[in-house]
Amino acid sequence: MVRHLEKEDNFGDWYLDIVEKANLSDKRYPIKGMNVWTPYGWKAMRNIDHFIRKELDATRHDEVCFPLMIPETEFKKEKDHIKGFDSEVYWVTHAGVNELDVRLVLRPTSETAMYPMFALWVRSHQDLPLKVYQIVNTFRYETKQTRAFMRVREIHFFESHTCHVSEEDAQRQIEEDVEILSKIAKRLCLPYFLSVRTDWDKFPGAYYTVGIDTVMPNGKSLQIGSIHHYRTNFSEPYEITYEDENGEHKHAHQTTYGMSERLLGAIIGIHSDDKGLIMPPDIAPFQAVIIPILSKDNGPLVTEAARALEAKLSEYGIRVKLDDRDARPGSKYYDWEIKGVPLRLELGGRDIENKVVTFARRDTGEKGTIEIENIGQGVELILRMISSSLLEKAQASQLSKLQEIDSLDEIPEGKVLRLGWCGCEECGHKFEDSFDLKILGNPYAKKEGYAGKCIICGKDTGMSVLAARTM
Amino acid sequence: MVRHLEKEDNFGDWYLDIVEKANLSDKRYPIKGMNVWTPYGWKAMRNIDHFIRKELDATRHDEVCFPLMIPETEFKKEKDHIKGFDSEVYWVTHAGVNELDVRLVLRPTSETAMYPMFALWVRSHQDLPLKVYQIVNTFRYETKQTRAFMRVREIHFFESHTCHVSEEDAQRQIEEDVEILSKIAKRLCLPYFLSVRTDWDKFPGAYYTVGIDTVMPNGKSLQIGSIHHYRTNFSEPYEITYEDENGEHKHAHQTTYGMSERLLGAIIGIHSDDKGLIMPPDIAPFQAVIIPILSKDNGPLVTEAARALEAKLSEYGIRVKLDDRDARPGSKYYDWEIKGVPLRLELGGRDIENKVVTFARRDTGEKGTIEIENIGQGVELILRMISSSLLEKAQASQLSKLQEIDSLDEIPEGKVLRLGWCGCEECGHKFEDSFDLKILGNPYAKKEGYAGKCIICGKDTGMSVLAARTM
Repeated sequence: MVRHLEKEDNFGDWYLDIVEKANLSDKRYPIKGMNVWTPYGWKAMRNIDHFIRKELDATRHDEVCFPLMIPETEFKKEKDHIKGFDSEVYWVTHAGVNELDVRLVLRPTSETAMYPMFALWVRSHQDLPLKVYQIVNTFRYETKQTRAFMRVREIHFFESHTCHVSEEDAQRQIEEDVEILSKIAKRLCLPYFLSVRTDWDKFPGAYYTVGIDTVMPNGKSLQIGSIHHYRTNFSEPYEITYEDENGEHKHAHQTTYGMSERLLGAIIGIHSDDKGLIMPPDIAPFQAVIIPILSKDNGPLVTEAARALEAKLSEYGIRVKLDDRDARPGSKYYDWEIKGVPLRLELGGRDIENKVVTFARRDTGEKGTIEIENIGQGVELILRMISSSLLEKAQASQLSKLQEIDSLDEIPEGKVLRLGWCGCEECGHKFEDSFDLKILGNPYAKKEGYAGKCIICGKDTGMSVLAARTM
Repeated sequence: MVRHLEKEDNFGDWYLDIVEKANLSDKRYPIKGMNVWTPYGWKAMRNIDHFIRKELDATRHDEVCFPLMIPETEFKKEKDHIKGFDSEVYWVTHAGVNELDVRLVLRPTSETAMYPMFALWVRSHQDLPLKVYQIVNTFRYETKQTRAFMRVREIHFFESHTCHVSEEDAQRQIEEDVEILSKIAKRLCLPYFLSVRTDWDKFPGAYYTVGIDTVMPNGKSLQIGSIHHYRTNFSEPYEITYEDENGEHKHAHQTTYGMSERLLGAIIGIHSDDKGLIMPPDIAPFQAVIIPILSKDNGPLVTEAARALEAKLSEYGIRVKLDDRDARPGSKYYDWEIKGVPLRLELGGRDIENKVVTFARRDTGEKGTIEIENIGQGVELILRMISSSLLEKAQASQLSKLQEIDSLDEIPEGKVLRLGWCGCEECGHKFEDSFDLKILGNPYAKKEGYAGKCIICGKDTGMSVLAARTM
C-alpha cells in the first residue's frame, strides 16, 4: 500500500496528493494553472452547480450566457474596476492573421460584459428588479503559486448580477443572497462566515463587499465567494437608467454575488482524511458503491443479487456504482476510500441469506446492515446522517479555530482571530504588515455588540474584525 | 398588430426577425458575431444539451472539461489541422502587462487541447476505448456574414473524442455516433441526412468526415454537425500509443463527433411560421401556457383554478407557465405564439363548470378540450402528438426538396440535388464553381446502389453525391 501524506503534518502537500490520487483534476496540461477537469472531478463540480442553479431559479433569477470576450473600450469604463484587474487579465490581440482594432479581454468577471446590455434591457421601473446569473469559466493571470481548485488561471465560476430601483431594494437582494448561500452551503456540508471587507480590500468598483470565508485545517482562511453592493458605481458609467413612476430617470442600484470552484477545494480540504477524499453525499458522483463478496461456489448468485441491488438503488434515485472488477474486495475498498464514496455496500452469500446488505460509512468507518427490502430508504437515511454529521463536525472544527485576542503579545498560530480595531487604515495596514495576517473584515451579522480597544492604537472602539493567514 | 415578415418570401430576414421577436438571443453585444444568450434562448439550448448528455452518458462517454486555451506549440503539431484553422483562430498574446513567451489559441475545437493529455492517459489496451465529451464554447473568427445560431464567432458546442485499439473499433464508434444522432434528432423533431464529405472538404486532419446536414425552407443546406474518423492521423504526432496484449506499442485510432448551437438555428428555421417560433415540446422552455379567461364575476374563482392547474401540471413534470399578467387574453395568445409555446391552455368559467380545459395547438391551431381530472396525461399525450407531427411534416418537407438530376441543363432552384459523379477532383470543382453549389458528399448509408454517368464528364459511375446551396 502506498503511504498517504498526513493532513495534520503538511496540509498543502496533503491536499495536492488527495486531488491527484482521487483523480479530480489533471495538472499536467501544458499551461500552468489551467487544469483539466477529469470525469470524476467534473461530476462533483456539476453537482455543486446543480444546487446553485436550484436556489437561483427558486429565487427568480434567470440563467443567461454572455460572451467571453469584452472590448477594451467597455472594460475601461469604470476606473476603479480596471485598476483592480489591469495586471491580471488575458488579452486577445489577433484574429487569424489580422491585428484587432480594439483589443479584447477574456472576462475575469462579467460586469463589463453585462452592463452595456443592461443599459439596453432596463427602461422602466417595471423591468426591475432584473436578476440574472451565469455559470461560466473566467480567466485571471495569477502570478502567485497555483493550486488545484483554490488558485487557478481558468476558473469555473458562478456569478449573479441584479439591478434595483433603490439602494434599499439592492440591500434586500444582499440579504436574499445570504439566504441562498446558507442553503447551498448546507448541501455541501460547508461551514463559513461572512465579513464586510475593509475599504482597501473590497471588489474594484464596489460600494461594499461581503467576503464569504471558510477555515482550512491549517487555520488559514479561504475565500469561497463574495457578495457586492455597487450602489450606482457601475450604472453611472454604463448608463443603466430607468424611468420611475413619476417619469423621472434614475440610475439603477446593483449587486453581484459570485462563487467558484473553490467550493470544491474547500470541501476537499475540510472533509477529507489521510485515507483520501470524503465526498458530501449531495455532491458525490457516486453516493454508494456496491462490492460483491464472492466465494468459490456463490459467484453467479452474488453477482446477480448485486446487479439487482444496483438497479433497485438506481431506480430509487441513489447515484450508485457496482464495482464488479476482477479484483480483491480489499483493494476495491481502498480505491473507493480514496475517491471518497460516502457509503460502501458489501454483499456476500451470508448477507443474501439474511436478506441484508452490510454497509460501511466512509466518514466514521461505522458498520452495520440494512434490510434489502427497504434498501432505498435505508441508504437515503444513512446518507442524510452522513451529511449532518459532516456538517456538524466541520462547524465544530471551524469554531475551535476562532479565537478572540486583546493583545499583540500573544498571537496564536493556526487560528482565525477576532480583535478590536478603531477602523483607521493606518492601524489596519500596520497590523496586517507586522503579522502577515489579513483583516477579513467586520462580521456581517452584527447581532452581538463589541466593546473593546483597537489592538494597535489602544483607542476605545465598538468594532471588531476577523483576521487570519489566507490560503 | 405588428406585421411579421413572411417565411416563404425571404427566409433570411424572416429568420432574424423571429429570433429577435422571440427574444432568443441579443445581437447588440459590442462584438459582432458574439451574441448574448437571453434567458429564453439559453433555456432552449440547455434542453438540447440535456438530450445530448443523456445519450452520451448512456453510451458510456465521460463528460470532461478541458482548458479553453491551447499553446501555439501544441496547436501546430498536426500540419493539416493548423492549415485548416490558421486564418480563423483568436490569439491571446498578452497577460496583464506581459507579452507571453508562447502565444495561446482560443479553442476552435479541442483536438489539440485533449490529445497531449490522451497521450498521458492511454497506456494499455485496457484503457481503451477512451470515450469523453465536453459541452463548451468554441471560437472562430468568421469573416462571412454572421447570423444568430447559424454562423457566430463564439459557438456553443458539443464535442466527443474517442480512442480505440483499431480502425474497425473506431468505425464501430462512428456507427454508434450515427445511432446517438438519430435519438437526439428525434427529440428535436429534426430531419437530417448524412454525407461522406469530399476529400477537399473533410475536417483538417481527418481520414474521412461524415457531414450532418438538414435543409432549410429556402432549399439551402445547413450543416448541423459532423462525425470524423481520424485513423492515426492525430495519434502519431501526439504520440497516443498503447501496449497491446502482446506487449507491442501501437497508435490509437481516433474519432470525434461534434454538433453546435446550429441545432437550435435549424429548429427555428424548419418549424417556425409567420406567427413566430414553434418549439418542439421536448426542448420548449415552456411546454404549455395557461391563460385564465376572466369575466366580471368569476375572477377569483378562475385565478384560483388556474393556479391549481399550474401546480398539478408542474407536479406531473410538464414545464408550464401561468400567464396571469393584467392584459387581454388575445394579446397573451399573440405573445406566446411568437415564443412558440407548443400548447395553449385556456381556462374560463364555462371550462371550470364542465371540468375541462380548452387547448389550442401552436403547430396546427387545432382546438379541443381536456378533462381536468386527467390533465397531466392529456397534456403529455398532446405534446407527444405535436412532436410526431412536427417531425413528420419536417421529414416530408425535406423529402420534397431532394431531387435527382441527370443533366446540367435543368438545374432546379431551391433543391438538394442528387447526381452522378465520377469522383475526380477536377469534375467536382468544375461543378461547384460553375453552379455555385457545394457537393455535400456521397450518401453515408449506401444501401441503394447507383448506376449512372458523371454529370460533368459523362463517364459511367457507381457513385452519386448530394449537392446544394449552403446557408
